[in-house]
Amino acid sequence: MTTRPNELTAVEAARRIDAGELTVEALVRACLDRIEEREPDIAAWAHLDREQVLDAAVAHDGSGPMHGVPVGVKDIVDTADAPTTYGSPIYRDHWPETDAVCVNRIHAAGGIVLGKTVTTEFAARYPGPTRNPHDVRHTPGGSSSGSAAAVADCMVPLGIGTQTAGSVIRPATFCGVYGYKPTFGLLSFSGVRHYAESVDTLGCMARCVEDLAFFRDVLLGVEPGDLEPHAGRLRLGFCRTHHWEEADEATRSSLDDAAKRLAAAGVSVEDVNLPRGLEDSLDVYNLLQQFEGARCLGPDHESHPDLLSVDARALHDLGMAVEADRYREALRRFHGWRVAVDEAFAGYDAVLTPSAAGEAPRGLRFTGDIAFNYLWTALHLPAVTIPAFRGPQGLPVGAQLVAPRHEDDRLLSVAARVAQLLA
Amino acid sequence: MTTRPNELTAVEAARRIDAGELTVEALVRACLDRIEEREPDIAAWAHLDREQVLDAAVAHDGSGPMHGVPVGVKDIVDTADAPTTYGSPIYRDHWPETDAVCVNRIHAAGGIVLGKTVTTEFAARYPGPTRNPHDVRHTPGGSSSGSAAAVADCMVPLGIGTQTAGSVIRPATFCGVYGYKPTFGLLSFSGVRHYAESVDTLGCMARCVEDLAFFRDVLLGVEPGDLEPHAGRLRLGFCRTHHWEEADEATRSSLDDAAKRLAAAGVSVEDVNLPRGLEDSLDVYNLLQQFEGARCLGPDHESHPDLLSVDARALHDLGMAVEADRYREALRRFHGWRVAVDEAFAGYDAVLTPSAAGEAPRGLRFTGDIAFNYLWTALHLPAVTIPAFRGPQGLPVGAQLVAPRHEDDRLLSVAARVAQLLA
Repeated sequence: MTTRPNELTAVEAARRIDAGELTVEALVRACLDRIEEREPDIAAWAHLDREQVLDAAVAHDGSGPMHGVPVGVKDIVDTADAPTTYGSPIYRDHWPETDAVCVNRIHAAGGIVLGKTVTTEFAARYPGPTRNPHDVRHTPGGSSSGSAAAVADCMVPLGIGTQTAGSVIRPATFCGVYGYKPTFGLLSFSGVRHYAESVDTLGCMARCVEDLAFFRDVLLGVEPGDLEPHAGRLRLGFCRTHHWEEADEATRSSLDDAAKRLAAAGVSVEDVNLPRGLEDSLDVYNLLQQFEGARCLGPDHESHPDLLSVDARALHDLGMAVEADRYREALRRFHGWRVAVDEAFAGYDAVLTPSAAGEAPRGLRFTGDIAFNYLWTALHLPAVTIPAFRGPQGLPVGAQLVAPRHEDDRLLSVAARVAQLLA
Repeated sequence: MTTRPNELTAVEAARRIDAGELTVEALVRACLDRIEEREPDIAAWAHLDREQVLDAAVAHDGSGPMHGVPVGVKDIVDTADAPTTYGSPIYRDHWPETDAVCVNRIHAAGGIVLGKTVTTEFAARYPGPTRNPHDVRHTPGGSSSGSAAAVADCMVPLGIGTQTAGSVIRPATFCGVYGYKPTFGLLSFSGVRHYAESVDTLGCMARCVEDLAFFRDVLLGVEPGDLEPHAGRLRLGFCRTHHWEEADEATRSSLDDAAKRLAAAGVSVEDVNLPRGLEDSLDVYNLLQQFEGARCLGPDHESHPDLLSVDARALHDLGMAVEADRYREALRRFHGWRVAVDEAFAGYDAVLTPSAAGEAPRGLRFTGDIAFNYLWTALHLPAVTIPAFRGPQGLPVGAQLVAPRHEDDRLLSVAARVAQLLA
């Protein structure tokens, strides 16, 4: 069976273009053909100008580390050559003057922005029309719904997402692709719509760990290096977290099974508990997200309250009702928890934990639970999800790896090794 | 001698309006008159529409915690009812669709944005036309040049600034006003142009500490509380830092004198040293600022390289030449230093340190040295400058107080007490 160009990983597609075995035009055309075939069912794209993209592909000389590889960009990211709606009717006709820094990095590396992918409204809770490619009756997860679905459905090899609670890791998991949320602040958020500023993080999706590392280097604006899977003895923590009982049976048994298989392969896997006090962390996180989320919605709430969803209005009202002292206390508590978890995780190459509470929920209204995501985001820790399992409904179930802050490189090489071992 | 309305502090002006002793129109008119008189010499404003502002003042009902008090907003902050140039000819005709969150908070509190104040190009090094009100042959400091000069010259009681190295504290110091740079992330940066994202911080200037606390609450979107000067025994550290010898004689003797006077007033003042390794911090900071600064300039460098200043082009080229490993090492080192300095400062209510290396330099080209600012910004610590002294040229010299992360409330009440003791 021949692999069609749109099914290639980004690194392999770039290699073939560089070697003269594939043209940028053929790659982009294959992606566009796949989209034309599947978009009526999946609805992953908020904006895609077929002619404009084909012109760019034909004109592309194949240079730069990306060699013309196309990317889907979440529609809360500003683009100067495409409209940017932030998933809201308020911005239906909004066309930014300047690219976000991450879009500029894609251009500078010789990549092509194929189009803008569907986001929930302002990357919060109100869903877009995107469906899960594995079963269109199910949510793809959110808020980076379109990027996850497009990458999973081989419409594009790489997608940009953002995560405030679980908006990269969860949709990647539900759609059965790899997702990477870096250490807070590593990748520029400049030109991206904020949701809750103390936790908002730019991330990406792909169909292998090597592509995540490659794309991360592009987005960081450095020369992409080769990713070497972690060699030698691997030491993993296994952190079920205090939300373990909220994961469904299939998720719990998949994770326990993964820990056993990794141990059988020679990996040291030790149970690790979260420091005391973190049982309160979901409540504290919610307070923080509401406080900051309300303020980010403020300008739109002032100018177009009628065009906000009921979800956004509720978030605004909840957040404006949070007392100042409780917000300051929330900031202080997470500050302390970051230091404590850094210490608790310091002895491990990475920590294994569920990616989500279960398979993608049925229906499009609810994009999924944040229980296994909000904590790592708010702790500013880097995380990767590996699409290692299937659940009882045949939908993807992931394994998440989390590493200490600023240990992104180690995390990616560990994830590459763990993905091999669980394959 | 009668105090003219434009000379009032924000809190006093708001009180008088609330009590019916002053009208919003009279206050705004006094500010506009002062600007008309002084702007030819000071050049603090990038945009000011006198008719629009007067209409807003006449229509204002005096409600909200700000009661119509006017504010100067640095021109790297997006405003929907005024152009926003970011100090660059690239954005000469740029008119944002949406207010920055901080501008929305001013509106929501019943404040009036009087106009946009001059910034250096993209809040970096290339200066604007603003002059120091104390001596127009001298720089007002940068990058928040216009806000500092306008507040100092009684054109407006409050100014918004941003700080990446020292861009709030230094111009406030040079212009002889109070400046406050909060803990990193406390105030929303949404809708503000980024310079170096891991350190960019929104801050403010005023003519007393009480106004800083009041304005901070407005910008945070909470009900302004009363500021109580720190009561009881005060424990200060005195941190000369490894840059002490770079401060001029007048600054060093002013700080030593302040420490003595505070001790004589019953304050405990202990010398505190920075942890080991921080001697390298300026080099590490510069690398970090160049790396991130180059990326924030990327979109403009792609679209309008010819319209960037020579300073901006140099920053871009320096930053793009930084190797990935050195940047990651810089992030890790500052991460470790933040934890170490938190511990070193934990026993103090605040730490006394110079605000700048000396008086405002002569000429407008150089906005001043970052030696006494970059470290606190990169450590994410809150800082306040108090205009306590005069230098040999008769220009203002400040005393800076720094507190542990998230101890902003304590810092402001300590600053209020120290300002009283040094008065």
